[in-house]
Amino acid sequence: MSILVVGSVAFDSVETPFGKAEDILGGSATYFSTAASYFSDVNLVAVVGEDFPEEHIFFLKSKGVNLNGLQRVSGRTFRWKGRYDFNLNEAHTLATHLNVFEKFTPQIPDEYKNLPYIFLANIDPDLQWNVLEQVKKPKLVACDTMNFWITGKRESLIKLLSRVNLFVINEGEARQLAMEPNLVRAARKIMSYGPKIIIIKRGEYGALMFNGSSIFSAPAYPLESIFDPTGAGDTFAGGLIGYLANTDYLEEDNIRQAIVFGSVMASFNVEDFSLNRMKTLSLNEINERYKEFKQLTHFEDI
Amino acid sequence: MSILVVGSVAFDSVETPFGKAEDILGGSATYFSTAASYFSDVNLVAVVGEDFPEEHIFFLKSKGVNLNGLQRVSGRTFRWKGRYDFNLNEAHTLATHLNVFEKFTPQIPDEYKNLPYIFLANIDPDLQWNVLEQVKKPKLVACDTMNFWITGKRESLIKLLSRVNLFVINEGEARQLAMEPNLVRAARKIMSYGPKIIIIKRGEYGALMFNGSSIFSAPAYPLESIFDPTGAGDTFAGGLIGYLANTDYLEEDNIRQAIVFGSVMASFNVEDFSLNRMKTLSLNEINERYKEFKQLTHFEDI
Repeated sequence: MSILVVGSVAFDSVETPFGKAEDILGGSATYFSTAASYFSDVNLVAVVGEDFPEEHIFFLKSKGVNLNGLQRVSGRTFRWKGRYDFNLNEAHTLATHLNVFEKFTPQIPDEYKNLPYIFLANIDPDLQWNVLEQVKKPKLVACDTMNFWITGKRESLIKLLSRVNLFVINEGEARQLAMEPNLVRAARKIMSYGPKIIIIKRGEYGALMFNGSSIFSAPAYPLESIFDPTGAGDTFAGGLIGYLANTDYLEEDNIRQAIVFGSVMASFNVEDFSLNRMKTLSLNEINERYKEFKQLTHFEDI
Repeated sequence: MSILVVGSVAFDSVETPFGKAEDILGGSATYFSTAASYFSDVNLVAVVGEDFPEEHIFFLKSKGVNLNGLQRVSGRTFRWKGRYDFNLNEAHTLATHLNVFEKFTPQIPDEYKNLPYIFLANIDPDLQWNVLEQVKKPKLVACDTMNFWITGKRESLIKLLSRVNLFVINEGEARQLAMEPNLVRAARKIMSYGPKIIIIKRGEYGALMFNGSSIFSAPAYPLESIFDPTGAGDTFAGGLIGYLANTDYLEEDNIRQAIVFGSVMASFNVEDFSLNRMKTLSLNEINERYKEFKQLTHFEDI
């Protein structure tokens, strides 16, 4: 099955303890689409400016991403600048230039309106709602958000969640949204807003899924060198939703496997700046690392 | 097989967001022994003052802990006072009164000197070394430490580690000891000091074991209410070493199971103040929770 993703396509400037890079390809929809493209057809809606080079278009097309929904308007592309210290779990935003993103309103092309799997990447919850108004009977609506919207657009976000089936959120943001320090109780509270499935991202500690009364704890892959954590969450979501769309099966066991594929994709992506690792990554490497995740967590029954 | 544990027996005063308690039973050797007693014979070496009540002696004896190595001397028992905020991973020490612990030198009774499994709970690394000088050919030497000794007795600790087979340490302390922010590289560096097996405790995120080139990621049990995290690390070590001594088998698969039993014991202990939960905990409950850990982490092969 095919996926519709709505989010940002951007230029990032990133500093880590291991190096720095200027104006590299980034954005939530970019990371998501690239990761998901390994498993499923992906159709992207976003906006870029006149400065967005053909090279990046070519890269996304080479991954099979449908760019008919990528608007190109006059002005400069969205830019984010951030720095990571040795604690790579936390990004320090140095600058955000919305540029063409400031007036972005998602226009869903007619050819996308019947897509069954939808991922609303981290943008204004009112725009996320607007996307749902344009599509017809999706099978799965998944979404992400961030602290900025939890603080600034709390009511819009909670209203949106009533139409969301699967919600991906950072640990600290889950606590913030639920106003509850205990993560299990926070997840249950967020479930009461609508989503049946809550997936809590914990960076280098992996992910926790709450699905009805069941809980799944997925590890992160212990990496000896994490080069650039930017986009890890969107890459995780791309692997997750990509695998679900590919298998088109939304039962617990399959979602667990999808979460591990999401973790696999994120573990590769942080090995290099931007989406550079995705340029060479093969399906065979993905399957091998999935098996390593299995080995990493396995213990015998009693 | 039987275990020798050397550490502290203490009174704790603890404040959490959920309540407070004064002068309750605590200490690393107490938590360790009680958890280990579910799996194996435990022989304790520690010191208490004249104020240590029969009630606590009775409790430890009821768990089958051999107290022939518990010195009772004049003065007051070691006291610790701490507070936890909503972030229950971090204890704020409000007061430490060493009292009789200040002049404590472990005296290993002759009947303990041939014990095959040894746990050196968190005390001065020179005293831990002193214990190893008194025992004969142990099969497994395990130890714990804390930031205080890493800072103040770094050389003693590194010297000690050359005689340690299994080292249990907190995540932040592993980074501090290795002077290396990446956890995988920190573990490899600590291994170079001696221990073949490094188990890194990550609080509510579980544990990571490094055993030669193999890595095992164990989850923590997602609890809806954590009442008092004091002693979680020692309780974890008690379940771990207790199970290893019980099975007397030090291969990877068995150590993985032992880590899960350690995590099970810690997950119960934090459900109430002090060792209160251990007063009613049954082997059947332990085995049931082990199965829940299995369910929590299970995902299918591809």
